[in-house]
Amino acid sequence: MHRMIAAMRILTGLQPSGKLHIGNYFGAMEPAIRLQSQGEAFYFIANYHAMTSLQNGAELRQNTRELAIDFLACGLDPEKAVFFRQSDVPEVNELAWILSTVCPMGLLERCHSYKDKVAKGISANHALFAYPVLMAADILLYDANVVPVGKDQKQHLEVTRDLAVKINEALGGEILTIPEPMIREESAIVPGIDGQKMSKSYHNTIPMFGEEKALRKTIMKIVSDSTPVEEPKPVENSTILALYPPAEHAVMIESFRAGGFGYGHYKTQLWEAYWAYFAPMRARREEILREPGYVDEILRRGAEKARAAAAPVLDRVRRATGLSE
Amino acid sequence: MHRMIAAMRILTGLQPSGKLHIGNYFGAMEPAIRLQSQGEAFYFIANYHAMTSLQNGAELRQNTRELAIDFLACGLDPEKAVFFRQSDVPEVNELAWILSTVCPMGLLERCHSYKDKVAKGISANHALFAYPVLMAADILLYDANVVPVGKDQKQHLEVTRDLAVKINEALGGEILTIPEPMIREESAIVPGIDGQKMSKSYHNTIPMFGEEKALRKTIMKIVSDSTPVEEPKPVENSTILALYPPAEHAVMIESFRAGGFGYGHYKTQLWEAYWAYFAPMRARREEILREPGYVDEILRRGAEKARAAAAPVLDRVRRATGLSE
Repeated sequence: MHRMIAAMRILTGLQPSGKLHIGNYFGAMEPAIRLQSQGEAFYFIANYHAMTSLQNGAELRQNTRELAIDFLACGLDPEKAVFFRQSDVPEVNELAWILSTVCPMGLLERCHSYKDKVAKGISANHALFAYPVLMAADILLYDANVVPVGKDQKQHLEVTRDLAVKINEALGGEILTIPEPMIREESAIVPGIDGQKMSKSYHNTIPMFGEEKALRKTIMKIVSDSTPVEEPKPVENSTILALYPPAEHAVMIESFRAGGFGYGHYKTQLWEAYWAYFAPMRARREEILREPGYVDEILRRGAEKARAAAAPVLDRVRRATGLSE
Repeated sequence: MHRMIAAMRILTGLQPSGKLHIGNYFGAMEPAIRLQSQGEAFYFIANYHAMTSLQNGAELRQNTRELAIDFLACGLDPEKAVFFRQSDVPEVNELAWILSTVCPMGLLERCHSYKDKVAKGISANHALFAYPVLMAADILLYDANVVPVGKDQKQHLEVTRDLAVKINEALGGEILTIPEPMIREESAIVPGIDGQKMSKSYHNTIPMFGEEKALRKTIMKIVSDSTPVEEPKPVENSTILALYPPAEHAVMIESFRAGGFGYGHYKTQLWEAYWAYFAPMRARREEILREPGYVDEILRRGAEKARAAAAPVLDRVRRATGLSE
């Protein structure tokens, strides 16, 4: 069986886990938006995955919608990327079942992310355990060949590759495309106001689209040391510095080294920098919110394109497994 | 939320695991056929489940088709029962994912059937482990309120009930119907020619639709003791007796007690009894095989009805979970 696959089909899923913060932006959205012109981008809102830790219908619906709005506001171009809700292509669950039939239990038992979550006290439900299989289905259903991953997702992509190979071996043919990881640069790790990785679960986030005053208040809380105003500031391990938008890093490092300014000054500057940085996205967001039906229409068309891409893959799998004639 | 549910919606799935034997018939098909007039019967060919131990497309397709033909030949009435292929309602996999999000790992780890299969050396794949969740989805997707189960499936029905209760609790509402078990009488356990439970994996089966000579040869191999011809035969633990069609039991017991006949005689009688018993089904089977497209049409209409029954259930679940608007 020979198939033509576009040079690069990139797949990324984002979990709708509440109000977006700048860690999400620099860690996931900004790189995704940069990649959207470099191949066929398939970007989806991973609402099935979010259900592993959230069983509240109203909240999941709200989070899903906000992620769609925010992603579009940040520059996701629905003419370039196929943008859809995971649950609008429920076929992914069928592929997940099929992958499960060739997935050794040991492969899932060895996944760090499951073990870590359980260690953190998140109650061990079966969906959390089965997560890597659904993630594999997400990728394989669209013949994606490039998957940008952070360090924490590398193992899951290995599971995906394993399962694709096993299906091809078991069913005798080039049925699923084996995806390649595209490892994200480590610079993508954004610290929170306490210096740890920015994460909702650490309560250290800086929101992307907050109110001006609240944003200032949050930024003023960033941890700093007690270097006096006039002295040079250490640039290693500086949370303030790490939080500056990349374009302004060089200038800031110079100023830190020169001394003469207190941390309060830098925090105020940082707040102004962010406020300015996200200004066009804030404006675009306001526009989107004023346009009734816009987001629904984008997602509807995205789902249509995603299902069209999934259909031939699922068709190959169903024939090969004997599920269809 | 109030819903009208027919007095009794009965659900049964049969795995397409190769040529049917009389153990399948008396253990599952015959009771299912007897029940089809007593409520709304939903009977499906569990081809997703069969994949947990079979990864051969041609074989699964063939087994699925043969089970459909044989079930119809045995008297399944597609005007009374909704008869469909599990994979024709792939929505069941979506419900399985949703159930997984409320399914504690411990619940699955405690399931005997998984532990038993692993103990028997069947390689532990994730689908085998997740089987009770898919089975729960099979039942809950159709609002089934009655599920005939043998002893070996009782625990799985408990899992189903647990998951339905958990979903209703988590999402706050009467979203899923809690099914009741209908425990099959123990008489349904049919011995194989070696006296153990008749099962493909014990290589002790008597085929339903075999050739006349092959059937005779198989029946002649049934184990018996060395009681002389003229003496009364023990009726307890007699495999021959247990294999007689229920209608002829009383007469046979009398003859056993009277003595005067050897086991060869009874085996010949048994063979004749079976040959006669399955004669109308064999004839109906020949008819079905001669009618091109008949089975496909039955399954197509069954799938249509099954999907129609599933739609409102899935709709309730998707709304409550926030997967849809």
